[in-house]
Amino acid sequence: TQQLLSGRAPRSKPFRVTNADRSVKKGIMADTLDDLMDKVSDSFGVQCVSALVLDEDGTGVDMEEFFQTLTENTVLMVLEKGEKWTQHPNSPSRGQL
Amino acid sequence: TQQLLSGRAPRSKPFRVTNADRSVKKGIMADTLDDLMDKVSDSFGVQCVSALVLDEDGTGVDMEEFFQTLTENTVLMVLEKGEKWTQHPNSPSRGQL
Repeated sequence: TQQLLSGRAPRSKPFRVTNADRSVKKGIMADTLDDLMDKVSDSFGVQCVSALVLDEDGTGVDMEEFFQTLTENTVLMVLEKGEKWTQHPNSPSRGQL
Repeated sequence: TQQLLSGRAPRSKPFRVTNADRSVKKGIMADTLDDLMDKVSDSFGVQCVSALVLDEDGTGVDMEEFFQTLTENTVLMVLEKGEKWTQHPNSPSRGQL
């Protein structure tokens, strides 16, 4: 269905999306950043997504090209207005590495 | 040693770029240092980028050839005029390595 031959059409990939306090995490398929934004908005009941960031280090995912480099099952965090990314409590601080 | 087959065209790579106080980090694709400078300038709304440095140790990235040696998802810091790199608060001091 995805135009295998044409090459250009991005392939749907699974992502894991969590909310800002990490109380909910959902698996969501998306082929573009806009597509993911739409689905996250629906799925989390967030009217206006302020940002999608990488759960691991808070890197903002604004650009389609960067989004396309993410691997399957990358964990993203959806931020609503006023919310901020915080480090995962269980992640090793750099000092412990 | 570079020019494999396609030769001149550098391949786009993902980078993670943070501002001087590390309050914002964004994923940005770029193929050359100039390209990254332009995109950082747009994305962060910085009119004049004073420097791009490595987040880990403040190494200035001025030269295209050095830029090309950076691996995917290297974290860079954008500095505006008057801003300086500071060590990451969670980074291990050298003594602990």
